[in-house]
Amino acid sequence: MSVRTPDPDPDWTPDAEPPPHPSSTPGWLTDFELAQIRERLPLLYVEAVPVRVDGLGQVTELGVLLRANPLGEMTRTLVSGRVMYGETLRDALFRHLEKDLGPMAFPQLPLSPVPFSVAEYFPLPGISAFTDDRQHAVSLAYVVSVTGTCEPRQDALEITWMTPEEAASDEVCAEMEGGRGVLLRQALASVGGLR
Amino acid sequence: MSVRTPDPDPDWTPDAEPPPHPSSTPGWLTDFELAQIRERLPLLYVEAVPVRVDGLGQVTELGVLLRANPLGEMTRTLVSGRVMYGETLRDALFRHLEKDLGPMAFPQLPLSPVPFSVAEYFPLPGISAFTDDRQHAVSLAYVVSVTGTCEPRQDALEITWMTPEEAASDEVCAEMEGGRGVLLRQALASVGGLR
Amino acid sequence: MSVRTPDPDPDWTPDAEPPPHPSSTPGWLTDFELAQIRERLPLLYVEAVPVRVDGLGQVTELGVLLRANPLGEMTRTLVSGRVMYGETLRDALFRHLEKDLGPMAFPQLPLSPVPFSVAEYFPLPGISAFTDDRQHAVSLAYVVSVTGTCEPRQDALEITWMTPEEAASDEVCAEMEGGRGVLLRQALASVGGLR
Amino acid sequence: MSVRTPDPDPDWTPDAEPPPHPSSTPGWLTDFELAQIRERLPLLYVEAVPVRVDGLGQVTELGVLLRANPLGEMTRTLVSGRVMYGETLRDALFRHLEKDLGPMAFPQLPLSPVPFSVAEYFPLPGISAFTDDRQHAVSLAYVVSVTGTCEPRQDALEITWMTPEEAASDEVCAEMEGGRGVLLRQALASVGGLR
Repeated sequence: MSVRTPDPDPDWTPDAEPPPHPSSTPGWLTDFELAQIRERLPLLYVEAVPVRVDGLGQVTELGVLLRANPLGEMTRTLVSGRVMYGETLRDALFRHLEKDLGPMAFPQLPLSPVPFSVAEYFPLPGISAFTDDRQHAVSLAYVVSVTGTCEPRQDALEITWMTPEEAASDEVCAEMEGGRGVLLRQALASVGGLR
Repeated sequence: MSVRTPDPDPDWTPDAEPPPHPSSTPGWLTDFELAQIRERLPLLYVEAVPVRVDGLGQVTELGVLLRANPLGEMTRTLVSGRVMYGETLRDALFRHLEKDLGPMAFPQLPLSPVPFSVAEYFPLPGISAFTDDRQHAVSLAYVVSVTGTCEPRQDALEITWMTPEEAASDEVCAEMEGGRGVLLRQALASVGGLR
Repeated sequence: MSVRTPDPDPDWTPDAEPPPHPSSTPGWLTDFELAQIRERLPLLYVEAVPVRVDGLGQVTELGVLLRANPLGEMTRTLVSGRVMYGETLRDALFRHLEKDLGPMAFPQLPLSPVPFSVAEYFPLPGISAFTDDRQHAVSLAYVVSVTGTCEPRQDALEITWMTPEEAASDEVCAEMEGGRGVLLRQALASVGGLR
Repeated sequence: MSVRTPDPDPDWTPDAEPPPHPSSTPGWLTDFELAQIRERLPLLYVEAVPVRVDGLGQVTELGVLLRANPLGEMTRTLVSGRVMYGETLRDALFRHLEKDLGPMAFPQLPLSPVPFSVAEYFPLPGISAFTDDRQHAVSLAYVVSVTGTCEPRQDALEITWMTPEEAASDEVCAEMEGGRGVLLRQALASVGGLR
């Protein structure tokens, strides 16, 4: 099975405003440039596990995205995306949450910029728990409470809400792309919800 | 100057419902029993730094309580109180936030039960950064975002909202009772707001 | 099966020096006093997962204690014990590590006093993931690297070293007393070793 | 004053073995390529605050590097460097510790891969607490206990050991390049040493 992180520039679909011209905006890369860099440098990502909480802040549900990969296979994944040049981590996190969950999700970004986990994705398996056949990526992962309505946009077909027990199950873990089942369990552990 | 943690059972003011009879409710202690235990065991507290955040989760203001101590002196302190027998940490945190900030503060309890700091209060100074002349107390400290209106009740006269810069200043730190200026700075550090 | 935290004063076995007389040392309690307090107040504990690491700080093995409980049943548990009056958390952690692992374990206490998890033990199941039929206890849990030789003393019969995979297995988790299998998995998650 | 992060490839000094040829080793970049990428992508760094601890794990001293920048000015900085393609964070951290502190420092890498802070460096001031006039860099920062002898190599002239009080002082903070005084205080806060 081909596992991939989401395309790093997935904002530029027909629905979105067109990207600025690469040569005039240093932060933007052509596909060719990005392909070159991907073989040379680790790329920085942010990743989020959206959750719903009760009145005492306890996580009751976790949101997992269902997505069709380029081969047409269904895989589960998390909110995820690249940090752009000049962009703060908070801005990147907010942008990708809006991109993947829609404008009405109302995410409550974490108070602390320290992630619950740093996931290292390598093209080859065995170096860490995570793989990405396109690149070496390092992802700062956060648990983010959402209070509004989530309507996945773009290539994410659906968001599935799971109880902590379901999210930690071997079945769900096996379906998560790139080894993100481990990330889901680490997220649960960080909020005291791992059983 | 006499520095003290808030009285451990401050709920039982004339405004509150009367406490259950101690002998029939194991979790409640008479003043005499509590005084005895205070010389024998470390007591468990929770403490909170209430904050206001912007749309990206960045802390813009911190709330500090102004209180008159039994000697009539004004001191600054944090939301704080004892964990009762049979009570979860989340319940204790919520109860003390409501007690000190009123019922309309709408605190967003942290997703993680791991505190940003564990403050150890000893009767004698020099053992740690924190002192409490009544007891040995160990306090789990949390940063808590509040979205509503804070109206201090009981013995807290006022809540003062400060910018991160003000809260970290030497002046404010010197006014915090029991060494809590350090806790305020640790809270700021934990949310990336220490400058 | 009866699950219990270790007796809170397990230092005072025939092998150890006798405790000071309670009335002259406020930090020490008679059995009767402790029994009384246990029905009135949450008791503060520290807990440790001893680990061995490789040259890059990666956890290779976790140590789990095998102990016979008062009913003669074998259970697995962690290094654990009560924080005494006037004692710092670091002192308590060191004392219990030495008590349970012997004087040659050479534990490297964590740089940060913030625990990886706060475990709440209640007499009745269902309130949290952890139970202790004797009391309400709140335990600050740490992962501690040990570099020497561990020789369990007192009531711990043996220390078993496990790989991360073994420690996270359902079998081991089911054998841990009071729900500490969850704590073991949280410990693994905190060091990036949960798979 | 010109503030800079250490050159991203400082291993390749006359003292070190020559770098592999760029075209045959995808992880290595020519100076020209790196200069191009620096205007397009955030670069990933690791950073370390070396510390000495007492027998209970409490930080007694922090190590700060003294370095001459390209303009011949003396500035203080931390152990720091880029994460290379295909390199784990632990490997990068170990490599830069050895590079800056020498082979006899015997660093004890942290058990947890989660940093105490994520420092965001931007070319322009005001976006975060940190600046780097060469690039947008995101740095994962760790406190690392060292038990051996530190002998700075390469462009670091000297390592200065400071008490927690000295390290947190306004004087030292003002001398740290790129705003790293804040990082030093965050490091202290994370180990309970901020006063």
